[in-house]
Amino acid sequence: MSEAAVKYRLIKKDKHTGARLGEVTTPHGTFQTPIFMPVGTQATVKSIAPEELKEMNAGIILSNTYHLWERPGDDIVAEAGGLHKFMNWDRSILTDSGGFQVFSLAKLRDISEEGVHFRSNLNGAPLFLSPEKAIQIENNLGADIMMSFDECPPFFESYDYIKKSVERTSRWAERGLKAHQRPNDQGLFGIVQGGGHKDLRQLSARALTSMDFAGYSIGGLSVGESKAEMNHVLEFTTPMLPENKPRYLMGVGSPDALIDGAIRGIDMFDCVLPTRIARNGTCMTSHGRLVVKNAKFARDFRPLDENCNCYTCRNYTRAYLRHLFKTNETFGLRLTSYHNLYFLLDLMRQVREAIKNDELLDFKEAFFEQYGLNRENPKNF
Amino acid sequence: MSEAAVKYRLIKKDKHTGARLGEVTTPHGTFQTPIFMPVGTQATVKSIAPEELKEMNAGIILSNTYHLWERPGDDIVAEAGGLHKFMNWDRSILTDSGGFQVFSLAKLRDISEEGVHFRSNLNGAPLFLSPEKAIQIENNLGADIMMSFDECPPFFESYDYIKKSVERTSRWAERGLKAHQRPNDQGLFGIVQGGGHKDLRQLSARALTSMDFAGYSIGGLSVGESKAEMNHVLEFTTPMLPENKPRYLMGVGSPDALIDGAIRGIDMFDCVLPTRIARNGTCMTSHGRLVVKNAKFARDFRPLDENCNCYTCRNYTRAYLRHLFKTNETFGLRLTSYHNLYFLLDLMRQVREAIKNDELLDFKEAFFEQYGLNRENPKNF
Ligand SMILES: [Zn+2]
Ligand SMILES: [Zn+2]
Repeated sequence: MSEAAVKYRLIKKDKHTGARLGEVTTPHGTFQTPIFMPVGTQATVKSIAPEELKEMNAGIILSNTYHLWERPGDDIVAEAGGLHKFMNWDRSILTDSGGFQVFSLAKLRDISEEGVHFRSNLNGAPLFLSPEKAIQIENNLGADIMMSFDECPPFFESYDYIKKSVERTSRWAERGLKAHQRPNDQGLFGIVQGGGHKDLRQLSARALTSMDFAGYSIGGLSVGESKAEMNHVLEFTTPMLPENKPRYLMGVGSPDALIDGAIRGIDMFDCVLPTRIARNGTCMTSHGRLVVKNAKFARDFRPLDENCNCYTCRNYTRAYLRHLFKTNETFGLRLTSYHNLYFLLDLMRQVREAIKNDELLDFKEAFFEQYGLNRENPKNF
Repeated sequence: MSEAAVKYRLIKKDKHTGARLGEVTTPHGTFQTPIFMPVGTQATVKSIAPEELKEMNAGIILSNTYHLWERPGDDIVAEAGGLHKFMNWDRSILTDSGGFQVFSLAKLRDISEEGVHFRSNLNGAPLFLSPEKAIQIENNLGADIMMSFDECPPFFESYDYIKKSVERTSRWAERGLKAHQRPNDQGLFGIVQGGGHKDLRQLSARALTSMDFAGYSIGGLSVGESKAEMNHVLEFTTPMLPENKPRYLMGVGSPDALIDGAIRGIDMFDCVLPTRIARNGTCMTSHGRLVVKNAKFARDFRPLDENCNCYTCRNYTRAYLRHLFKTNETFGLRLTSYHNLYFLLDLMRQVREAIKNDELLDFKEAFFEQYGLNRENPKNF
């Protein structure tokens, strides 16, 4: 067997938590973990150029298989020379499997052992995704890290349903591994499901870790359950995963959840949150969220965040950003998107630094306090 | 009297046309003319960062007094330290007077000798602009070059009306000059009106050139008349203007009109055209317009314009741009806006080079031919 496409190296563990400082190497470079991955759903991180992602030290971004399959089509991306070339990004890329979109967006789906029949979210056309089809699309896209096709049932689905679903997802994972045509360029991750049930997470993890995946995702979280529940599931799930492979928590991007996830041994995170809220003018700052559209910022000539060194904060004021949002200028959401992504990438840099110094719990306490944990509105996170 | 805020130096005239190579110096730098000025209506050149405008060698941009007066308010811009600081642009800025917006956008306007009563285009509120008020707003904004408040009557308005309007615009110009509070930082231009009538243009030019303006605009063109008519008016109007001051043709931005204007002795141009059409996916290329949304570009992996060296053309394909437009991604219009602005700024660089070498007519012929002059659709310009 040739060399693995994706390698993980554990550099150091935090003395007081499960957090790990590590390094992932793919055919498109090496990045340190824990890391946050900006999301470029349609082969673009909304309103941000690849060069700007590099300025922020992004090492890997995520793109969505389902969306690219529909538009422009994975055949066109393949013809362009793959996703990296198509979108002008020469660092690492991760693609999901399309499963999450099928189960969250699509109507009238019909799940069988073979796969899922459903209707296009775009135009209602009948579509079919199976483990083999998802891998085929992901092979065409050519990301460095690919996800297995899984079912993502609601967190509060019945135990019996989740158990059946976990078993099927494991069979689908095996079929996906077999279908994978580019193991030398692309690493495939398995996705551990099981809702809030420890024994089902164990069932899922055992099945998947018995197969040779390049890493493991934890799916079925951040889908409506409380943060305490999510943390609880992470606490008992990450120890079921091998130490020599990266662990990826899907769909999580609020600052507190990133820190709490790192503490529980997660290496990789992604979420649309920073860019989605940025488009409403909502910014993450070291003192909590700030809605820059608000009237009180009309004559506020300070930067978004005085502790931030990003392009936006170095050059623009809250008053200017408010003006751009009030006049619907796209440059406004470009600037807030830049800041929010920078903020999370820089947060993860600080998390890595804290692990290095065995200070992650102190860092968490100080960060939470300043971010507003004890203030009126804990939703501020 | 202290030194003028805006100086013009004539470097060289083209041997075969009225075109002039020159240099304008303002408190924020020096740029060569003929030049195209990108438009940043709301204190932002739509979707483009100031650093990107510098990459394109933009020396001066335009912003709109009427829009900034309404939002965020000239008082806020003044409090921010002026428009340059507010929008993070340290090269030259030109502001119009608001007159064009009043006469083109506003409903229910009431013109008197004193000024114009009209209703806000935003919220219907009653507003009043006079020569003094316009200058006061422009002084607050702090652009390097300001425009006098003028009336811009329709090109095909009656001779008698245009004559009365020209006379009033001259009286308004004089009042504006008197009201101007920052002659050491900001240069004020007079605006020559007169529709298509040579004697009225003469009347306007005589009145304005008898006053001490830093430069002269030619207004009332590109408002519906044919390009032949516009060129005809330019031919007899520019000779009425002093050689030692810059000449600015307002609202013109199609490649043919820029070249034809330069040939007739115009130094400065502005227009929303390049960014406006870019937002529809329409791109100016050396072979004419290209609508990148079209289905035929789905698998076209060439750059927008193979002769273009801009960021967009160096890094992205037509297929990728089409994908971004089909998925409504703002990064698409950012990339096409970048290209169109670069295209016009680079066109003007070539025009200046051609004047230097007394080759402007040859350049025009070659450019027009390649751009598609003799093809089916002359609207291609
Ligand atoms: Zn910032
Ligand atoms: Zn270009």
